Amino acid sequence: MKNSVLIFIFAFISFSLSAQQDLFNAPSLTSPVINADNTVTFRIKAPDAKTVSLSGSLDVSNAFAEITYDMQKMNDSIWSFTTPVLLPELYRYRFTIDGVRTLDPGNAFAIRDVGNLSNIFIIGGGKSDLYKVNRVPHGTVAYRWYNSPGNDEMRRLTVYTPAGYENGNGKYPVLYLLHGVGGDEEAWSGSGRAVEILDNLIAQGKAKPMIVVMTNGNVAQEAAPGKGSVGFVQPTFMLPHTMDGKFEETFTDILTFIEQNYRTIQTKEGRAIAGLSMGGFHTANIALNYPNTFDYIGLFSSALGVRPMNNNPVSPMYQDTDKKLNQLMKNGYKLYWMGMGVDDMPMIYNGNKAFREKMDSIGMRYEYHETAGGHTWNNWRDYLTIFAQRLFK
Amino acid sequence: MKNSVLIFIFAFISFSLSAQQDLFNAPSLTSPVINADNTVTFRIKAPDAKTVSLSGSLDVSNAFAEITYDMQKMNDSIWSFTTPVLLPELYRYRFTIDGVRTLDPGNAFAIRDVGNLSNIFIIGGGKSDLYKVNRVPHGTVAYRWYNSPGNDEMRRLTVYTPAGYENGNGKYPVLYLLHGVGGDEEAWSGSGRAVEILDNLIAQGKAKPMIVVMTNGNVAQEAAPGKGSVGFVQPTFMLPHTMDGKFEETFTDILTFIEQNYRTIQTKEGRAIAGLSMGGFHTANIALNYPNTFDYIGLFSSALGVRPMNNNPVSPMYQDTDKKLNQLMKNGYKLYWMGMGVDDMPMIYNGNKAFREKMDSIGMRYEYHETAGGHTWNNWRDYLTIFAQRLFK
Repeated sequence: MKNSVLIFIFAFISFSLSAQQDLFNAPSLTSPVINADNTVTFRIKAPDAKTVSLSGSLDVSNAFAEITYDMQKMNDSIWSFTTPVLLPELYRYRFTIDGVRTLDPGNAFAIRDVGNLSNIFIIGGGKSDLYKVNRVPHGTVAYRWYNSPGNDEMRRLTVYTPAGYENGNGKYPVLYLLHGVGGDEEAWSGSGRAVEILDNLIAQGKAKPMIVVMTNGNVAQEAAPGKGSVGFVQPTFMLPHTMDGKFEETFTDILTFIEQNYRTIQTKEGRAIAGLSMGGFHTANIALNYPNTFDYIGLFSSALGVRPMNNNPVSPMYQDTDKKLNQLMKNGYKLYWMGMGVDDMPMIYNGNKAFREKMDSIGMRYEYHETAGGHTWNNWRDYLTIFAQRLFK
Repeated sequence: MKNSVLIFIFAFISFSLSAQQDLFNAPSLTSPVINADNTVTFRIKAPDAKTVSLSGSLDVSNAFAEITYDMQKMNDSIWSFTTPVLLPELYRYRFTIDGVRTLDPGNAFAIRDVGNLSNIFIIGGGKSDLYKVNRVPHGTVAYRWYNSPGNDEMRRLTVYTPAGYENGNGKYPVLYLLHGVGGDEEAWSGSGRAVEILDNLIAQGKAKPMIVVMTNGNVAQEAAPGKGSVGFVQPTFMLPHTMDGKFEETFTDILTFIEQNYRTIQTKEGRAIAGLSMGGFHTANIALNYPNTFDYIGLFSSALGVRPMNNNPVSPMYQDTDKKLNQLMKNGYKLYWMGMGVDDMPMIYNGNKAFREKMDSIGMRYEYHETAGGHTWNNWRDYLTIFAQRLFK
């Protein structure tokens, strides 16, 4: 018995290697190896290479900046590098061999960010344990299409329903979670680890069970690259009509779809909205234009300062902003939360500063959370972790 | 206005390149380019390389075998190769530069198959138009966790609900669709393009609207690699307990979950099961052990011939097979469909032949569909396309 299975395995492997499938060309090197002291060893076989380097979000001492390390040739064919001790975090990396960007053949796990794939790994402990799939009750992740009459098309979004949603009758609050430039409806569930963060926070009793709706903020794009009818078109980082008010204007199509299709609390107490970068800009404007809709508003490294915040003729969404801000304040809300890295780009850092000053000038309440680092997923995962625990309580 | 956005874009790009994010390192080369005559041109910049080759499922004249082409150095740094005319199909490929396997930096679209990532592209026309996302009503794809008391854990599966399911009250038939060795609950929605195939066939009126449940047949694995609590462990091609009856034995946990959680037709008229390779072996055994459950049974390149089909002591699932086969025949069913490539590995080809002979010997009805090619996704996508159109009619 055992034998026949072994024969099957070997037949399968040799058949595959020789002929028809690429399935079993397993790499012989294990990379990366997370060592006991949280240094990490990377290895790649490149017998003829002149230079091999490792690049990624690997420098924890400098605001998680992108860093490049030269790898060392260990013997005739293996190049290796061991990092300094890394802090708990999700890390991205890639190799460059003689000027050619490549993934780690030893690591099948990669995330696409705009047009590039990078390998990932997690150093556990502390906050990054929230980024792992743990043995806790899991929510459901669904990729759905909603009708957007405002855009005259079906559009794709991602819906997280918390563990228990499908087997109960209760109504749930909803967090609308928006991506940045170059992102799409898969950004928060990919690089953002939003599903794991919510599963874990809810399981620990630190966040209320909530539905999370991850939208696509590019109205020129019905779905994430590769998931729409344009096919496998290489992603670009900013699409037409991405910041011209159209997404904010047609956001009601999303609200309508979610509230018609899910058991939701359909008052402002049951609605939160947050976004990173461009999605923070969208969030700010959606909060202004739908002033009695959300009790919780989160701006993560929000791309304020890019558009004039008042009387911008490109869209009615961007007009009478001062008046709308006053109205939003008057209507009331529970939390207006802003996260910002000190090393963010000046246009964004200063745009947020100017916006806070405007809020100060009218006595509008907000919480400002300034952190190390800059315009990075490291910060956005942190901000989501903090913000999610503040919602619906 | 326009200007401030342009400034933002450039600030963002230069900021990103210099500092914090790897988002906008867009490749300058477009690759692959599908030419008007369906030849395909691949390009990669590799200034110091001595040899660059292109490998993949690119040889349509030889049963879609894996083929390697040498690329030509066009000038100081660009290597290029243009294929012969390719037939409509989804193709996988990768580059090898001086012996190092690498993806195409110009193509962000890749599929993981066991431990390897490969780039993909589609040559449209004919059958492969079914593999594309077209402007048709789209079903929902949900990743869910079900309780498996038989395995004493929560396990992950993929559920496709057809367009209209969420907004209606009707009951739907269910196709259970099983992967092969090294695969998981994401195999059929990834390499198999099952979501696109079903969306398109249903939109064309060629297949009945149905729910498709894509399971994980590795009982030693709660979820696909990277999606379970073991973390980013490099995938291996065959896990313990993968063909020892445990999956077949605990299949009732899946049936129970689906029928309790979805509006399904809960008689054999409303149930189909099919699987590829190991999943075809699982399918054959599940059909035998639950003989009044499925009216439609599909074996795609089924891994018969690996286990003795009768009185195998490893599991009660594999015992009294002859008796169970007679019972299955006596109970009746609408379709027992077998697909097989002539170039499949002898153990599998002959195992299926022996099984057909056994069915013949007792006068058991089946349909046998022999095709060109071998143990490949090209065939399995074809078999699904044919089989799905035969269901629930």
